[in-house]
Formats: sequence, structure tokens, C-alpha cells
Amino acid sequence: MTITPPALSVFEALESEVRSYCRSWPAVFDRAQGSRMYDEDGHTYLDFFSGAGALNYGHNNPVLKRALLDYLERDGVTHGLDMGTTAKRAFLESFQDIVLRPRDLPYKVMFPGPTGTNAVEAALKLARKVKGRESIVSFTNAFHGMSLGSLAVTGNAFKRAGAGIPLVHGTPMPFDNYLDGRVPDFLWFERLLEDQGSGLNRPAAVIVETVQGEGGVNVARADWLRALADLCARRDMLLIVDDIQMGCGRTGAFFSFEEAGITPDIVTLSKSIGGYGMPMSLTLFKPELDIWEPGEHNGTFRGNNPSFVTAAAALNAYWADGQMEKQTLARGEQVARALDALCAEHPGTGAEYRGRGLVWGLTFTDRARAAAVAARAFELGLLIETSGPASEVVKLLPALTISPEELDEGLRILARAVRETA
Amino acid sequence: MTITPPALSVFEALESEVRSYCRSWPAVFDRAQGSRMYDEDGHTYLDFFSGAGALNYGHNNPVLKRALLDYLERDGVTHGLDMGTTAKRAFLESFQDIVLRPRDLPYKVMFPGPTGTNAVEAALKLARKVKGRESIVSFTNAFHGMSLGSLAVTGNAFKRAGAGIPLVHGTPMPFDNYLDGRVPDFLWFERLLEDQGSGLNRPAAVIVETVQGEGGVNVARADWLRALADLCARRDMLLIVDDIQMGCGRTGAFFSFEEAGITPDIVTLSKSIGGYGMPMSLTLFKPELDIWEPGEHNGTFRGNNPSFVTAAAALNAYWADGQMEKQTLARGEQVARALDALCAEHPGTGAEYRGRGLVWGLTFTDRARAAAVAARAFELGLLIETSGPASEVVKLLPALTISPEELDEGLRILARAVRETA
Amino acid sequence: MTITPPALSVFEALESEVRSYCRSWPAVFDRAQGSRMYDEDGHTYLDFFSGAGALNYGHNNPVLKRALLDYLERDGVTHGLDMGTTAKRAFLESFQDIVLRPRDLPYKVMFPGPTGTNAVEAALKLARKVKGRESIVSFTNAFHGMSLGSLAVTGNAFKRAGAGIPLVHGTPMPFDNYLDGRVPDFLWFERLLEDQGSGLNRPAAVIVETVQGEGGVNVARADWLRALADLCARRDMLLIVDDIQMGCGRTGAFFSFEEAGITPDIVTLSKSIGGYGMPMSLTLFKPELDIWEPGEHNGTFRGNNPSFVTAAAALNAYWADGQMEKQTLARGEQVARALDALCAEHPGTGAEYRGRGLVWGLTFTDRARAAAVAARAFELGLLIETSGPASEVVKLLPALTISPEELDEGLRILARAVRETA
Amino acid sequence: MTITPPALSVFEALESEVRSYCRSWPAVFDRAQGSRMYDEDGHTYLDFFSGAGALNYGHNNPVLKRALLDYLERDGVTHGLDMGTTAKRAFLESFQDIVLRPRDLPYKVMFPGPTGTNAVEAALKLARKVKGRESIVSFTNAFHGMSLGSLAVTGNAFKRAGAGIPLVHGTPMPFDNYLDGRVPDFLWFERLLEDQGSGLNRPAAVIVETVQGEGGVNVARADWLRALADLCARRDMLLIVDDIQMGCGRTGAFFSFEEAGITPDIVTLSKSIGGYGMPMSLTLFKPELDIWEPGEHNGTFRGNNPSFVTAAAALNAYWADGQMEKQTLARGEQVARALDALCAEHPGTGAEYRGRGLVWGLTFTDRARAAAVAARAFELGLLIETSGPASEVVKLLPALTISPEELDEGLRILARAVRETA
Repeated sequence: MTITPPALSVFEALESEVRSYCRSWPAVFDRAQGSRMYDEDGHTYLDFFSGAGALNYGHNNPVLKRALLDYLERDGVTHGLDMGTTAKRAFLESFQDIVLRPRDLPYKVMFPGPTGTNAVEAALKLARKVKGRESIVSFTNAFHGMSLGSLAVTGNAFKRAGAGIPLVHGTPMPFDNYLDGRVPDFLWFERLLEDQGSGLNRPAAVIVETVQGEGGVNVARADWLRALADLCARRDMLLIVDDIQMGCGRTGAFFSFEEAGITPDIVTLSKSIGGYGMPMSLTLFKPELDIWEPGEHNGTFRGNNPSFVTAAAALNAYWADGQMEKQTLARGEQVARALDALCAEHPGTGAEYRGRGLVWGLTFTDRARAAAVAARAFELGLLIETSGPASEVVKLLPALTISPEELDEGLRILARAVRETA
Repeated sequence: MTITPPALSVFEALESEVRSYCRSWPAVFDRAQGSRMYDEDGHTYLDFFSGAGALNYGHNNPVLKRALLDYLERDGVTHGLDMGTTAKRAFLESFQDIVLRPRDLPYKVMFPGPTGTNAVEAALKLARKVKGRESIVSFTNAFHGMSLGSLAVTGNAFKRAGAGIPLVHGTPMPFDNYLDGRVPDFLWFERLLEDQGSGLNRPAAVIVETVQGEGGVNVARADWLRALADLCARRDMLLIVDDIQMGCGRTGAFFSFEEAGITPDIVTLSKSIGGYGMPMSLTLFKPELDIWEPGEHNGTFRGNNPSFVTAAAALNAYWADGQMEKQTLARGEQVARALDALCAEHPGTGAEYRGRGLVWGLTFTDRARAAAVAARAFELGLLIETSGPASEVVKLLPALTISPEELDEGLRILARAVRETA
Repeated sequence: MTITPPALSVFEALESEVRSYCRSWPAVFDRAQGSRMYDEDGHTYLDFFSGAGALNYGHNNPVLKRALLDYLERDGVTHGLDMGTTAKRAFLESFQDIVLRPRDLPYKVMFPGPTGTNAVEAALKLARKVKGRESIVSFTNAFHGMSLGSLAVTGNAFKRAGAGIPLVHGTPMPFDNYLDGRVPDFLWFERLLEDQGSGLNRPAAVIVETVQGEGGVNVARADWLRALADLCARRDMLLIVDDIQMGCGRTGAFFSFEEAGITPDIVTLSKSIGGYGMPMSLTLFKPELDIWEPGEHNGTFRGNNPSFVTAAAALNAYWADGQMEKQTLARGEQVARALDALCAEHPGTGAEYRGRGLVWGLTFTDRARAAAVAARAFELGLLIETSGPASEVVKLLPALTISPEELDEGLRILARAVRETA
Repeated sequence: MTITPPALSVFEALESEVRSYCRSWPAVFDRAQGSRMYDEDGHTYLDFFSGAGALNYGHNNPVLKRALLDYLERDGVTHGLDMGTTAKRAFLESFQDIVLRPRDLPYKVMFPGPTGTNAVEAALKLARKVKGRESIVSFTNAFHGMSLGSLAVTGNAFKRAGAGIPLVHGTPMPFDNYLDGRVPDFLWFERLLEDQGSGLNRPAAVIVETVQGEGGVNVARADWLRALADLCARRDMLLIVDDIQMGCGRTGAFFSFEEAGITPDIVTLSKSIGGYGMPMSLTLFKPELDIWEPGEHNGTFRGNNPSFVTAAAALNAYWADGQMEKQTLARGEQVARALDALCAEHPGTGAEYRGRGLVWGLTFTDRARAAAVAARAFELGLLIETSGPASEVVKLLPALTISPEELDEGLRILARAVRETA
């Protein structure tokens, strides 16, 4: 496939230097369907990126599309702040019946604004308000968002520097396996908590991703998550699971923490919760934490009703039974097998892979190799990004709805890209 | 009209106590068109609220709706992060041709995430990064958003308390007429800046709304804005105009600061920029400020392409000539006349009004009267909210596309509500 | 008098560049008595500086010297942390009998560490602890010390920059007459407090100097202080008077706030409280504020017993009756007359003076004149410093024990220095 | 010995509840000489406390006393701010000749104010100013002072809570052996530094005590200190050794870090530097760090000349040769032998000891035992305090000038106190 340089002029002339993905993927995309994107020059791309996790059901999923078009055509309320609407009620009822009740989760639902960072900001505000403490513990290589509250618990030094002010009230702790198994889990954290002379400001909460997507596809073991939940309970800290990228079925179960059998105090959801890639997010919390005053946190786009419509449609279509979870785990095994073969094919490169469900990472001893592989994959028609503090991880994030054939096709392109960057 | 208590149960049972508008307006809305909303019980409401300014073109505006449906039907890219898309290019070209170039505005465009507070956070981060200083000056009764960076420059004590941490790096200054004309404009601010012993941390920037909507429809005079712009220029501070609620034609011109003839260094837009009430926002800044590194600020929903489609359609439909501005100013005069009559009808109540374009506020000596008026208006089928630190201002925010007849109808309901709360 | 360059080498070679007074006064002082200092080259200097207010009773005052030598000779406890000692008891009893009881002041006494900034830090910590709020209001051109807590409420931008971190939790308000009488006193401050939308974090306390010594000899009117005390009482803020430089009789009465008839909630004393120029400081507060836990604030040199000895001796020698206050006011009138004549002698220079008791400031339209006057005065054998944000104020701070003849002599040298810098 | 309740009334009535040592030792002390203190009721106490390390040369050391009395009698300058004085010069010359030059230490000397916390505040300010970063790394159970800058790097939660504001810009790391040898030294710290995604704000400096006195007599190994110094050098962080309690010969050598063979970038000294227990402190730093502007940090009592006199006398009397160091190490061995025997005498109590030079700690499995031992020792005429986060360590801090017989006497009383609290 040959890529003709697209007419990027207005982007380059008008858009801020902060733009990023358009630099790695110099195309102008026009249409998309399922796991395929099409640029204006007629090229087709297989998508192993899925809107950074916002498109678990694929592009313009026909089931959701039908519901959305029907709603828009009949002039359903589009913008609703936090007014009651029939679309919101339908979503809440589906969420309760399909997600919360079968899992015995007691959560209240907050619409904190339609982006992930809104959900995290609301979670942190509530935790601090409930506990009357300022400090939050986060983990190495965490990613929680770009507004100041979220950024303060995000690990990446480059993004932190963008704040322009010192980021305080957060303390990083080692994520699972951060110290290569040389230190017992939570030894340092627990010691800080039990010692009145440790200097650690007592945390209101701990915020964690079960799999750190942006941080490099770092997978926490279920045991580690259980020990963390136990630590939080024993030490009077709230446990916040940021399930923005890993929730909505990315790891198999609807919530990524289900496998560990824990019930976080607060959960954030965004990205794929709306189903169709339009902005939506939720902050969930145990009812006893719901000490918000009416209107104490607000926001114009909390009630993005078209997203409620597609969100409800997605829940009904995909989560009313356990098929989606099973399918994701099966697809995950397909990926693991392919990555296993790929790594075996490249001895001496330090090629390794890790992941859960349908999120996988591939690394090499040569940390620059990941970016080269992703670039070559793009030339070969595969959209795949890198993550990790040094962009050293090839990150596979196909749609959950991808067919086995498409998945196989993408894995073959990936394998070719690896070979061609040797 | 009689309001039957709607089936609110799922909202009350499942939604967080933080919910707010649904308490003032206990209805479940289903459809909406232009300036009318319809609840599920068949009641019709005239809308003087317009999604808190997100619906300047009315609900489900047919011109935008057609463009949106076409786009969705043909599987245009829905979710695009900051990838190049044909929809984004069309928006950028329209924005350049219709908005920036005719006004001789040199701005670069950043997509900071689709909500207002994302746009403000990006503006503050950039200002601090450019100037290498932490401090921001805001104004009394300012409203800029609920995430930590924006909340720190927001005035409302109730909302600030929600942060759970001390909000620092911001200093409030008196908004225009805050001290009832007893103090020369900017006397205090300039003295603090010129005196090396004043104790004011030198600000990176000043953030201002030309009309404070949430703060109580406080209208800054053009002279005051010009003096502020001059002060910023003389004292090496960036001027940020938060035009999230007052931009997109709310005060007449596309940008609310045009009347004053100033060119802010940074401008934030959101709410009605997307046109159809779906999330979208922009941060605009002078090219020399564009020192962002690629990806230094990011976010999943920066590329909400359906909003780009409706945004471009709105610009083409309403802003290619000067008709919209003229019409808004004419409608504004219609409101002013009605409010003038209304105040005259109620001597001794201290009834006063103020506003610009199609944003107006009505106050009474009895500060609780505003809420009573709004509640009665709802019963009479008019959606109208209050604002100000004590909710003491009835705030009129009809769609810019409202017809003179609808406007008159709403004003008559309002007058009746005032009479019936005497 | 001719000054031979002294052997400064070890100072220049070894002492940090931060050294300051030794640059203005390039002499090596050896002995001192009363209002005279003697350098190693045999030059005599009349002292209008008094250790920046730490030597209200003159250098090596013979009454205090006798008590100190007796104590040291008999091996009285020198260092005592906060243990009970006979010297501490004697001081406490004298302080109670001579200072607190006659003035009907109810204060508890805290020894916060022996320097002014220790006293201010303790005052701020206690105020925040009592009120459960972080914010402190200070005034333009305030000076409270160099450690981080005190520096955050100090106005001088140059000194603030030394912190190396953003200084937060403090908000400056205009000191008396800061805006040249163009704004009603406390209009802005009270408006911020009463308006729930003002954006001011509610203060725990207000800290004020009755006369700002370092800030430029800015004298607050008694009316203004009373209005401030009233505002604090009405708005539930603690009033802290920092009387470190202006207490111990500098303005006439023992406490500088006595003239205004107010009773601050917290008072800091240092500098001349020890009497002999050795480190000592006190934080005084109303008993109901004494919620400290034992040892919650500590410090090695809280019990500098030699200072307790000289402090008690000074109280007994000078404050058992009202003579000291009367004498100071009389000497102050002598200064005022001389400054009046001096200003009259220099029409067209904008020469103005201000002060209270024995602290006076002299300014000129040419702000650089003050430093020139002080430099020339040094050459003429008078130690006198400048203050104010631009060092634009000649600051007269003679010992309270200065004789009328010495005072006259110094004022004549000052007058000559003014003439010779014309 | 029977203790008659002393006349404590004025202390209890007038002094703040914050008072502390006077509660543990309910006596009123009057005189002191060498290692003995005498209360007003004629009781004698052997001192194993030494003013918390401020009296390394014993109480009212006759050599220093003579120099002090001579100086005071001849009216040497008592208070000198940072003016040049003959006393200051004599101190600087002695410090250079006796302390710095023989050790090949290149330091500039700053007089930051006369208390330890002043010295630490100055060190932190300078480090931040030099590096342009806010963050400081401190260690678990560190103690650096009570003003806000120092308190933020102090570990004790009880003392931190006294601040009344969140303490930020500091991050604790594990002190030597904090995790019982289960974790390689600096594994976590170095990993945080090398990983761009760790979330650690890059530190300007690391502040460390070589032996944590207040923290529980925790002794860092020389190897650990060398590894820390190496880490700081490799990672561009300044190394600050807070030698306030452990310097001036407490561990044997003049500086406690000499044994490790490292040269910190910044060193703080206070407590015994003045020699006689009067306030004095120093901040020392490498010349290339001396970027202070003149007067950027100041303070009234920087020039406590009587302390300069006794400080110089102490250096000349005790440090002109290596005798003091040898003697201290010998006395330390005497203590170690006695503690070894004491622990052996109490099997099953978990009695353990640790220390260096003349600072030693004794602990028991029953953490409350230490306070009981210290209380009983007081009844038996021995002043000895506890330290550690739970006051679980009996802390031995005799004067360096104590005789072998006195030391033996005190150790026997201690052994008796241990027996009698079984």
C-alpha cells in the first residue's frame, strides 16, 4: 500500500502543535465500520487501536447506530444537563438490571461530565470530602487524565510538566511487579501507614488501574488487587478503580476488577461506556459515600443523551448474557498464541508479551523497536499504537467485536512489521 | 397546566444526590424541537434555558440534524481522538473562513477535550507554561468549571468546598461594578502589580468572562474590558477570555469580546460551538503562545466528529453573514423592553434587570424571589433558571433562533410568574 | 571622619553572598554601649538603628548587664528547652505582674523558639488549627519572617522569590492608606467576606503590624485598627498582631496596639523582649485558643534562660511604672519637630515624614535619595537604615533609652546628610 | 531521693499547654555545671540529656564561661544582625582554621538565624533556588524542625498535624534498615528517579540525618550514606546533611558524615555549635551554590555575638587536635559495654541497643517500657529522655565532656531504672 501525502495543510496551519496521533498516522480518515477505517484516498486500515479503548464495539456498530438514528430522527432530547429524560432513565434501568444487580454491586451513579478526567476529578473530590484528607496514593505509571486533579495522580513526567504548577497531594507507590519481585507486595506502603513517624500524609484514597494501558500494559495480578483492597479496608482508605480504559469488557468481564472478586468503593467508567465513541462517563460509588450536596459538582455535558441511547443499546445487545465475556477471553487466547509464536520467532530480541482479555503489550530489549513496529504496521495498513513511559510497548487494543479472521489478519501484519523492523 | 409527579424512582434510587436540575424541574423530558421541550406526560415547555447556553440554535435544529444524520448514516468517523478526519478538516476550514479570518483573529486552535472545563484547564496550563508563573487572577463570582484547575479560579464558595483540598494559585479581583462604583477600576489590581512589596504573586494570566452568566448575569462594560486588556499588556499577563457561555453569538457578535474591540491572548469556547448540544470545546490562542509539545495535553474525546459536523453546519448556516448578530441584538431589545415594563409594574420590589444580546438577569430586593419566580414559571410551562451566589437572579437564556412570538410568550409567562409570587 | 577599609577578607571569603548590613556599613564593630557602637579602628557611631528594634534599651544596658553577669557567674541554667527554671519563672511572674495584669490582658504565654519567625509560625499554626482553615489574610508591605510560613504572609517580592516554591494560603489586603484614601477602609475585604461567590478562601486569621517597619514605616491609624478588630470579630477570623518590632515600647505603650484599645487574639513578641539583644520570642494568645497538645510545637532554644534574666530585669527596670511610655512619646515629639524642620528646609524634594513613638520614616520624591542619605550618614558616624519595598524610606529607630542630647546629635547628622545629598 | 512538688503554679497558669519537658521532669531547675543540674529544692540530677544535644560541652563549661564573661564585661557587641564584628570574625577564622580547612571542606558559611529550623529553612530555600525544583526527599522518621518548610520534611504525624495546612513538596523514602533489610538499599528511590513514568516530582535535594535522634536513634551505616551521596551525584540532586543534633562531635568526628567519607552539598549546624547552649546556627554549602542575592534571606538574631564568642572558644579548646574525637569514641564504647550487659540481664524483654559515639538508644519489645524507664530514672536523679514515633526508645545523650565516673554512675542508674520497671 502506498500512502499519498494527504492535504494536511489546514491541520498544520491551524491546529495547535499539541496534536499528536495525526503525526503518527498521517492520513485523513473519512469513514469507519467495525474494525476498519477508510481514509479519503481510499486506503483501508485494520484497527487495533479502537479509539484508545473508546470503541470496544467497533466503529459505527450497526445495532447502536440504528438506536441512535431512531432517537435523533424522532427529536429525542439531545442535550439535557442533569434533567430527567427518558433516554437517561432507560440507560439507568439497563445499567442497573444488566450491570449492577447481577454482580451484586450496590453503586450509586453520578454523571460527572462526559470525559474520563471529569469522572476521575469527581472521584477524587468525593473521596477527599468523605475522608476529610487531601492525600491520594496512586501508582507508578498510572494515567488518570489531564485536568489538574487527575494529572496530579498521573505518573508521566512529560505530561506532568504541562501543568505549569507543582502537582501535590499525591504520592506514588509501586504498581504490581514494579520492582521485579524483589520486594514483598505493599511492604513499603503498609510500613508507611503503620508508622506514625513515616512522614506520609494519611491518604483519603488509593486510585488504581487493574491494567495500566497508557502506562505500558502493566497487568496487576488478582492477588495483588485483593491485597490492595484489603489494605485499603484495614487502613481506612477508599479504593478507587479507574476502569475507564479497562472496563466495559476490555479484560473479559464487564468490570476489570471482577476477576479479583473485589468491590471498590469508587469506580470510574468512560471511553466505551457510551458504546458508540461519543463522550460519556460515570462515577460509581457505594451509597454511604454519596454525601454530595445537590449541584456541588456540575457540568454542561453531563447529560449527553445520544450517548445514553447508544450506551443502553450496547448493554442490551452485548451484556444481557455472558457471551461477550467468553468471546473476549477466547479472542484473547488467540492473541496470546500469536504473540507467543511471534516472540519465539525472534530470539535474542528480548521480545516479550503480556496482557489480559483483549489488551496486550509487546516489548523488545531495544526500546525504540516498538515505535518502529507501529510505524511499519501503519504502512502495512494496521493501526496500532505504543504506550509506556518510553513508548516502548506495542499496544494491541482491537475491538471486542472483531472477528477471528480480522484478528488473525492484524496479528499477521504485526508479525510482518516485527520482521521488517529487525 | 397540572404536573403529575413523574416516575422518578430510578433517578432517586440510583442517581447520586449531586443531581440538581431534575430537582427544580421534576419532569422526565422526552423530545425537544427548537424552543420547545416535551415531557413524557405530554406537557410542553417553552425553553428560556437552552441547555445553559449549549443550545443557541435551539433543540435539534433541523439544518444541523440533517447534516448529522447524513454523516452518521454514511458511517463517517465518529470517534477520532486527534487523528485527521474529513469532518475535522471541514470544521477547521469553516472556522477559519467564517470566524477567524473575517475578524482578523490570528488564533491557533486546540481541541482540549470536549467540555468547557477541559478548555479552561488547557488554557491555564498553557498560560503557566508560557509565563513560567503559577498565579492566575480571576474575578469575583467567576465560573470556569469543576475540575481542580478550573475550580481554583471559580468564585462560588459552595462549589469550591467540593474540592476537598485548599484551592491555591488563584487570586480574585473585583469584577466590573463589584464595589458599586465606589472604587476606580483596577486601582487595587494595578497597585498590587506595581508595588514590589504588595505580596501578590505575579500572575501568569487573567481569566475573565465578559458577562458572568453563572455569577448572576454581571455585564462588564466594554471600557472596563479594554482597560483590563491594556493592563494585561502593560503588566505582561496573558488575557484569557472564557467565552464558553457568552461566545457563539450569545451577546450578538460571535465572540462576546468583539464589541470591546480587544483581542485576548487565549479564548475558550464550548457549549454552543458544537451547535447541536453534543460535547465539543476549543482553546484558541495566539500563535506565539503555541509552545505545546506534541501530546503534552491529550484526551480521549478531543475528536468528537459528530460535533465537528454540526459545528461546521452551524457556522455555515448562521455565521456566513451578519444576520444572526443583528437578529440577536433585535431580540435582546425585545427582552429589554419587556423587562423594563415588568420592573415598572412592580415598584417597591427593587426589581431590576441587566443583560446583553440574549442573556438577561432580573433581580429583586427580596433575594429569594428569583427562585420563587422560576418555580412558578415552570408550573406555567416555562423553563428558566436562576443564577448568582444566592440564586438571586432570574436568568433569561432563550435560544438565539427563538421567534419573536415565542419570545413574547415566554416574557408574558415570566411576567405572570412575577405577579403570582408577589 | 575617615573610614579606613577594614580587614574584611574572612567575611568576603567565607561568608555567604546573602550577607547584607555589612555591605552598607563596611566596618568591623567591636564594642557598644548605650547608643554608641565602636569599630575596631576606633571610630564611634551613633546608633539610630538599634539592632532593627532588638535593642530598645540600648547596647549592653548596664542594669541588664549586671543581672546577666550575676546569673552567668553563679552558673544559672543557660539552656533549658521548656523545662521549668527559676529564671523562666521569674520572667513569667514579671511578665504577668508588670505587663499582662495591669493591662487586663488574659493571654497564655508560649515560647515558640527564640526568633520572630518562630513566633509567627506558631501563631499561624495555632490559628489554622483552631479555625480548621488554611487561609490567612496579611497586608501589603507586611514583613513577618523568612521561614516558609512567615514568608507566605510577607509582601516583599524579592524575599518571596527566595522561597523556591509558590507561596500559597495567604491573600494580601490593602494596609491603611494604601490606596491614598480613595477607597473606604475594608470595603473590598468585607465585600469578599460577605459574598459567597467572591472566590476568597475563608481566612482563619488576619495578621497585621500596627506600624510596618520593614514595609516603610507605614502607620495604621487607631481607627483603622479598631475597624479591623471589629471586622475580625464579626467575620469569625482571629486577629494576630505581630508586635515583634513595634512592641516592647517602641511606639510608647508596651504593646503598640494599646493606643487603639483593641485586644488581639494572638500577639507575637520578639526582638526587644529579651532586652539585651539575645534571642527570645513569645507567642501570646487568649486562653480559649490554647488547644495545643503537649509538645505539638517544639524547638531546642525555646528556653534561652539568659534572655529570661535580662527580659525580667528590663521589665522591672523600665515598665513597673509609666515613665518609659511618657519618655518615649516625648522623645518622639523631639524627632517629629526635627523632621518637620528638615522637611521644611527642603521644599521641592517632596520630603515627608511619618511615625509614632520612636519609629519614624523620612521619604523624598526621588526614591533613591533615602539610600544616599543613609550612606552619607554612615560616613558622618550615624547608623541609620532604609526600609520600604524600594528602600525609599530613611528609617529612624533610636534606642528608647537615648538621651535628648544624643537624639539631637543624631538628628543633626541626619539633617546634614540630607543637605549633603541634595 | 524524694521529689517535693515544686511551685509550678505560674507555669501551669500562664504557660501554654504546648509545654512538654516540664511535664516529664516536674522540677524547677536553678543551676547547672558540667553534667549536673540542680533544682531549687536542692536536688541534684545527672544529665544524660544535654539540652537535646545543645550542650555537648556540658552546662556552663568554665572555659567558655570565662570567654563569655570577658566579652560581656568589656561590652563587646551583643547584637549584630549580619554586621561585621570582631567576635564574628574570630569565629569565622576559627571555624575555617580548625574545622573546614583540616577536613578539606570548601564550604561558604551562612548565618540563617540562630535556630536549627532557621538553618534547615535556609538550606531548603537555597536548594530549591539552585535547582529550580520544588520537591525535596526526606526520610522516614526524620526530624528537621517546626516551621513550615522544615515541618514538611519531618516525619512525625503528630507534629505534622500541628501545621494546620497540608504539608507538600516533600516525599519520604525509607531510612537505612527501615524495611529490616528485606529490600535492597535505594532500589525504590532509584527506580522512581530513572522511570519517567514514576510520578515522582524530580527532587531538588535530599535531606538526611546520619543518625536520627528524635526519630529513635536510627543509625545509618557509612555504606548507606555513601550510596546515598552517590545517588544524589548521579541523579543531580543536592545532598543536605542535617547535622544539627549529630554534628559538633556527637558521633566522634566534628561532622557526623566524616566517617562515611562523603562531602554533602549543604550542611546545617546548630545546637552545640554555639557551645554554651545559647542560640546559634549555620548553613554551610559549596561555593558554587552560593547564588543568594544580598539580603534575600535575613533575620534579626543572625548575629548572636555572645554565641560566636563561646563557639570560637569551644573550637579552640576542644577541636584544635584529635583528642575530643578519640575521647568520645572511648566513652561510646563504655556506654556500649554497659548497654550490652544491661540487655543481657533482661532476656525475654527484647532489650536491644544501638548508637554511635555518644548517642545511644535502648528499646524493649514492650514499647511503653522506655517511658517508664525514663520516669523512674528521673526519680533516681537521672535526666534521660525518650524518642521515636511512639516514644519507644530510651535515648542516651550525655555531654561529650562527661567523666568516665559520671558516665558509669548514670549507666548504673539507668540499669536500676530498667530493673525497677520490670
